Amino acid sequence: MNNKLIYQFSPSNTEGDKSMTDLLGGKGANLAEMSLLGINVPPGFTVTTEVCNYFMKHGNVPDNLDEELKQSLKNLEKTTNKIFDSDKKPLLLSVRSGGKISMPGMMDSILNIGINDKNLESLSSDFNDERFALDSYRRLIQMYGNVVLNIEMDRFEAILDNKKRIDGVENDNEFNPDQLRWIIDAFKTTIERFSKKSFPQDPNIQLNGAIEAVFKSWSNKRAVTYRKINNIPDEWGTAANVQSMVFGNLNEKSGTGVAFTRFPSTGKNKLYGEYLMNAQGEDVVAGIRTPFPIGMHEKNTQPSLEEVNSALYKEIKDIADKLEMHYKDVQDIEFTIEDSVVYILQTRSAKRTAQASVKIAVDMHNENLLTKEEAINMVDANQITSVLHPQFKESSERDLFEKGLNASPGAAVGVIVFDPDTAELEAQKGRKVILVRDETSPEDIHGMFSSVGILTTKGGMTSHAAVVARGMGKPCVAGAEKLIIDYKNKTISNSSLTLEEGDLISIDGSTGEIFVGEIEMESATLSDEFNTLMTWCDEYKKFSIRANAETVVDTSKSLEFGADGIGLCRTEHMFFEGERILPMREMIMSDSKQGRTRALNKIIDFQISDFKEIFKLMKEKPVTIRLLDPPMHEFLPKSEVEIAELANSTGVSTAYVSEVLSRINESNPMLGHRGVRLGISYPEIYKMQVSAIFKAAYSIYLEDKTKVNPEVMIPLVMNSKEFKKMKKIIVSTIEKLEKELNFEFNYLIGTMIELPSAALNSSAIGENADFFSYGTNDLTQTTLGLSRDDASKFLAEYVEKNIFEVDPFVSVDENTVGKLISSSVTDGRNSNTSIKIGVCGEHAGDPKSIQFFNSLDIDYISCSPYRIPTARLAAAQAQISIG
Amino acid sequence: MNNKLIYQFSPSNTEGDKSMTDLLGGKGANLAEMSLLGINVPPGFTVTTEVCNYFMKHGNVPDNLDEELKQSLKNLEKTTNKIFDSDKKPLLLSVRSGGKISMPGMMDSILNIGINDKNLESLSSDFNDERFALDSYRRLIQMYGNVVLNIEMDRFEAILDNKKRIDGVENDNEFNPDQLRWIIDAFKTTIERFSKKSFPQDPNIQLNGAIEAVFKSWSNKRAVTYRKINNIPDEWGTAANVQSMVFGNLNEKSGTGVAFTRFPSTGKNKLYGEYLMNAQGEDVVAGIRTPFPIGMHEKNTQPSLEEVNSALYKEIKDIADKLEMHYKDVQDIEFTIEDSVVYILQTRSAKRTAQASVKIAVDMHNENLLTKEEAINMVDANQITSVLHPQFKESSERDLFEKGLNASPGAAVGVIVFDPDTAELEAQKGRKVILVRDETSPEDIHGMFSSVGILTTKGGMTSHAAVVARGMGKPCVAGAEKLIIDYKNKTISNSSLTLEEGDLISIDGSTGEIFVGEIEMESATLSDEFNTLMTWCDEYKKFSIRANAETVVDTSKSLEFGADGIGLCRTEHMFFEGERILPMREMIMSDSKQGRTRALNKIIDFQISDFKEIFKLMKEKPVTIRLLDPPMHEFLPKSEVEIAELANSTGVSTAYVSEVLSRINESNPMLGHRGVRLGISYPEIYKMQVSAIFKAAYSIYLEDKTKVNPEVMIPLVMNSKEFKKMKKIIVSTIEKLEKELNFEFNYLIGTMIELPSAALNSSAIGENADFFSYGTNDLTQTTLGLSRDDASKFLAEYVEKNIFEVDPFVSVDENTVGKLISSSVTDGRNSNTSIKIGVCGEHAGDPKSIQFFNSLDIDYISCSPYRIPTARLAAAQAQISIG
Repeated sequence: MNNKLIYQFSPSNTEGDKSMTDLLGGKGANLAEMSLLGINVPPGFTVTTEVCNYFMKHGNVPDNLDEELKQSLKNLEKTTNKIFDSDKKPLLLSVRSGGKISMPGMMDSILNIGINDKNLESLSSDFNDERFALDSYRRLIQMYGNVVLNIEMDRFEAILDNKKRIDGVENDNEFNPDQLRWIIDAFKTTIERFSKKSFPQDPNIQLNGAIEAVFKSWSNKRAVTYRKINNIPDEWGTAANVQSMVFGNLNEKSGTGVAFTRFPSTGKNKLYGEYLMNAQGEDVVAGIRTPFPIGMHEKNTQPSLEEVNSALYKEIKDIADKLEMHYKDVQDIEFTIEDSVVYILQTRSAKRTAQASVKIAVDMHNENLLTKEEAINMVDANQITSVLHPQFKESSERDLFEKGLNASPGAAVGVIVFDPDTAELEAQKGRKVILVRDETSPEDIHGMFSSVGILTTKGGMTSHAAVVARGMGKPCVAGAEKLIIDYKNKTISNSSLTLEEGDLISIDGSTGEIFVGEIEMESATLSDEFNTLMTWCDEYKKFSIRANAETVVDTSKSLEFGADGIGLCRTEHMFFEGERILPMREMIMSDSKQGRTRALNKIIDFQISDFKEIFKLMKEKPVTIRLLDPPMHEFLPKSEVEIAELANSTGVSTAYVSEVLSRINESNPMLGHRGVRLGISYPEIYKMQVSAIFKAAYSIYLEDKTKVNPEVMIPLVMNSKEFKKMKKIIVSTIEKLEKELNFEFNYLIGTMIELPSAALNSSAIGENADFFSYGTNDLTQTTLGLSRDDASKFLAEYVEKNIFEVDPFVSVDENTVGKLISSSVTDGRNSNTSIKIGVCGEHAGDPKSIQFFNSLDIDYISCSPYRIPTARLAAAQAQISIG
Repeated sequence: MNNKLIYQFSPSNTEGDKSMTDLLGGKGANLAEMSLLGINVPPGFTVTTEVCNYFMKHGNVPDNLDEELKQSLKNLEKTTNKIFDSDKKPLLLSVRSGGKISMPGMMDSILNIGINDKNLESLSSDFNDERFALDSYRRLIQMYGNVVLNIEMDRFEAILDNKKRIDGVENDNEFNPDQLRWIIDAFKTTIERFSKKSFPQDPNIQLNGAIEAVFKSWSNKRAVTYRKINNIPDEWGTAANVQSMVFGNLNEKSGTGVAFTRFPSTGKNKLYGEYLMNAQGEDVVAGIRTPFPIGMHEKNTQPSLEEVNSALYKEIKDIADKLEMHYKDVQDIEFTIEDSVVYILQTRSAKRTAQASVKIAVDMHNENLLTKEEAINMVDANQITSVLHPQFKESSERDLFEKGLNASPGAAVGVIVFDPDTAELEAQKGRKVILVRDETSPEDIHGMFSSVGILTTKGGMTSHAAVVARGMGKPCVAGAEKLIIDYKNKTISNSSLTLEEGDLISIDGSTGEIFVGEIEMESATLSDEFNTLMTWCDEYKKFSIRANAETVVDTSKSLEFGADGIGLCRTEHMFFEGERILPMREMIMSDSKQGRTRALNKIIDFQISDFKEIFKLMKEKPVTIRLLDPPMHEFLPKSEVEIAELANSTGVSTAYVSEVLSRINESNPMLGHRGVRLGISYPEIYKMQVSAIFKAAYSIYLEDKTKVNPEVMIPLVMNSKEFKKMKKIIVSTIEKLEKELNFEFNYLIGTMIELPSAALNSSAIGENADFFSYGTNDLTQTTLGLSRDDASKFLAEYVEKNIFEVDPFVSVDENTVGKLISSSVTDGRNSNTSIKIGVCGEHAGDPKSIQFFNSLDIDYISCSPYRIPTARLAAAQAQISIG
């Protein structure tokens, strides 16, 4: 533990600065920094986070705190020319919490410390206002009783309410001195009755109690929950900021307010905020009086400070400018005016919308305030996707139904439907529907496609619903585990409310919230600043960004968002759609190669036209096509009706269909007969797919002489023999076609590295592969032994209990999956200098993972179309971060 | 390719030796070796396997073969004083195949090469026997026609049969010269008609044709299949052995026979074998005449050569002794006597039973023939388990029903039952039953326990049935995929035959064969030689051998077979048995910690007594106990009746039970909520188990002052935080108990390393773990992304196509799983010098894997009780192999 427990800040002696947020918390560090800048901050001192940690561990503050506290108070008395614990000119203090990261409203503050029965009179005369002094004392006793002595706030409020009722007083601030004296007595009695203690008359005891209470509040339930949700470590602790009081409620030349140096919702460069004269911060919060705007703005309904008192406005504006310039970021400032003197109580980086964030970054570079690197770093890569999606209007009213995982960003309003067919039907009628399922499967795709949003009660961030929704750019709330769907009666219920099919709901995929009824929306347009920022990013990022896309819509979106190619085109969707599923099922039912080939011949033309559409859009840009991957039974019917249908259409008995179903059913399909294993067992499937790819390529060439660049990807390879065997089959299929057409194709043949064994065999596989693409989803599943479909049951608990810092399906688990990828890249490059290496798992859209990928020698990453801007930004930031 | 294509062997010039089996094949190398030893071998030469490989690749022999062949023939003519391709004193040759490893009966031979119309007369006079010369010619034409010209053997046999019928001849050897001449003509005509070629009169063409035919026979269907089954690489090729003919059928002073230097079934040190005078090898094979025994033996029903012709016996016996001494192994010898001269045509290591193999090895060391190391190496570690299991009598008649995987060795005869309850019921009535299921699950345990053998139609070598059966030491044939079970009608069918419940079958778990009806059996007793051999092994092996065991029966067996401890005691079985399943289900249905704890309290006494029984047997020997591992739904009912029962007994609705079932159902249970994940979610389960372990330990201490050594194993750990969290809970449970009892327990707390992530995190996990135990089954599943339950569908094909050399569930895949284990051991030891390291997966009973484990710095391996002798032997062999 650091020896120094307290850091002072005052015009004459400031010991901290803005870099010391670990020790002093964000508020304390910035109070020190502002003091150093010569900004008028009420002087005071900060008790460090280490003291908090000591307190949490031992249940008491360190012995030497008392000595430092005394010395600090002495210094503060000198600076303020007031005396703590004195009957004359008493020094009043506030004690406020302040962790490294702001946790607004989560912890406690106590104001007016230092008042007691004896100095009350001196205070009245110092401020020339008896009522003010008594009210301040009343507030101190109330806060102290609640925060330090844990007496419920209601007990004090009840006394105030009674008194108001009995004496016919409307508002708290209308009590006269006698009434306040009566209240103070009643408060003291309440404290004695419920805490078995008197309200302490010794200001030192008040101060110590307040500091300890702030430390304790770090562990209150609200704060603990907030930290869990926001991934803030418990070990950080909070500082306690002890500051001389200033009073915005002293007179009409006093006041209080909050200002943003730019508009936090749009980014517009104009001081923005609210203030109230003759008021304290809590008055603004309590909403008793409506605050006035600070800056002039067309939407203002009341006169602004700028108009009413331009001198004061200018004073605040100058301070705001100075702070923004100094911090090189938009500031969120709290100020108090005491008798015409402006004091700044807090400054911090302002929260802002994604739109604002982009505009501010670009503007600040153009204003020469930031370098291009700084501007890029200023935008949150995760947040930026929300500029692409329509959103709920901020002002709209909301009735929360439940909260799930924010699986795919954006907002959607629609009527509930419980099955994909109804979704499609209703959508055809022009209705906006939200598909609500326990979980989705590839057979639901048409329903998902027809819906404006998807809600599931099971599955995590990388469940089928989540992945597909992100791919489609549709909002999705996944894993809302508390909701119960009753498919039979077509209802969905939380603990108190049951909604039916056809009821309107609104879902926010950026927050995971589900609302009852309709919430007003606004759509997104990509700003010039957005495009500028993206262009800047491309100057820095060291690898290219591709998209995971297999439909025309996705492919177009990818290009719109700046994809350099397609890194993962999943072909299984091509087997599910519409009438194609029938020959696919016929193929699976067949027990001969001839039968299978006959069935496949019915699908090939569909696949050719699918590939053509994609090639037509992508032109020469590389398109990585993954050959059929999922286990066969995903394609088979489940219901008895469907089974009967299939039996009928293929001319076999339903018993035979059922037998095939049970034969190919698997205990763990993820580890079963899928990927290249199907290709090895039924080479005719892969041959058909390869033929379709290159026939499409040739047809594009015939149309406009474009020579496309397909990259054929073999999934789920375990070792080099398996890869070589499959590659040979593919190459001979291509070469046969080349001979037939007298044409030479561009192509690469590579593999997905998605099993630990493939990663460990990279050296041997690399010798023959033209490219590696890391399938980080599956690699995470097998490396950690975690099924992404099942893990939602306990993964949240694992993150909560800090066994994982982050969900490993969200950010690559660097110690394990990362280690495998890293050594695989090295092995692959060593065995094949010309190998192309990419990443195509969901992690490719996650900034933290992108930071990791940037440390590897790779050529591209490939993510969902809507994550491309995130990826471009994060890739640039990652590269900037290493200089 | 080697420049030299042919290697000669003769008393005066021998170019090969026994070490050259790669190039000359086993037969060729040993013919050369015997020639060098001065043993009377008909001189000749060997065309190398490389020529065969060249031939297979190019379709013709290398150009320079002809030149070498000519030179070799010239040398042979000189040695034999006969002339090939001459009308006088013609040199006759045999051409025999011979690969590196003997493939008996799989490939072709041609004898009597060199006879033609012109030298027939000279041959008659050389041997002074016209009939003999004509018959030899007849045989040559027949063999040549069949083997070289691919004319069906039936065509020749038909001619012989016709002639016999027409002329009233009984046997082939009774034809007179005229008849033989007629037959020779007919044979020649047949060849001309069906091959459009004449039988070649040029002996060189005969020879070249024969050599090429031998090479071609390497690729015939029989041979290819045999190699697949026996894992012999196609690339090895066969040699062609060209040898001067000797004739056992020349006169009464001639003969032929086969001898073993010791009894191959018992190992008794006495020359054993059969012979026939005036006969050729094929006469013995054809069974026309009954051969006589060579050595005197009490079971002989006919006089032996030893009695009839002791001089000849002694001559053969001397050669046999010389060969055994030279090869230091029991030899299987083919000999021919031509006119009183003994020739040796082949010697090779004799196939023997496991019992014989053990006795021979121990005897040979005691006879100072072998060092102890050589004796240990001589026994096949895989084969040795069969000395532990009862076996079918070799002589018994068999009617094969189907073949599956040889999942657990031993033989069993019983009536078919299709469900575990019936199995138990019938067993209680004293009937021997074989449980026949598609696959087994933990709920079938009582049925498996009641059965004498298990047969499944699904699953592989490490399926539930296979693992449990090996653990129980019961024969099991698994994955007999071609059999179809009809549970409704209680039948099992192959393509032609349907058996019903109650029908008798016999299964051989050592071969995977299933027979219709009853086959006679004989039981096993452990010989003194077996015990001696095991003791020797213990002097060499560098790690200890533990058992995977959790029942009294298994634990006793383990000790009987020499286990040093228990390396894996699976506790889930303790939850399934009898009445325990009910509270277990009650626990799962409960949605509160209190409810779960209440249910667990009903199970704890059972568990205490289970652990006590094991501790009582194992005493101070270490016992590694794995805490509950399988996913919850394995414990839940599946059928509607059972669901109703459970609802009834726990007082909830069937709808609620179904809802819980569907809630905890998982898509990929292997990667789901299981192992330590259950312990993290429901610590009360693990706390109960730990309490039970140590209460049992204390109770043993009270009874006889034995302080047992439990090692608590946490399954499915992913990372060190997870391990630490669980360890803390366990330690505090133990410490609480220690305080209560005022007693200090011996214990270790460690983890199973069975996920790639655990292996990759070994350094961090090792810091806190007392031991690592590699769960190689699960580690194989996740590393390779292969579900052992599903993989049987395609794994056989993968081994067949050589994508895997061996089933990775049988032998550790060293490049991947092995690599992870190897670096994990290093990391674990580096971070914790006192860590104990073991292996407890099924691979610990596999010699090939043990060889690999021996290369690591580990303390023990742990396998099924019945694999312990294998493990002891293989561990010794592995250590011996590295000196």
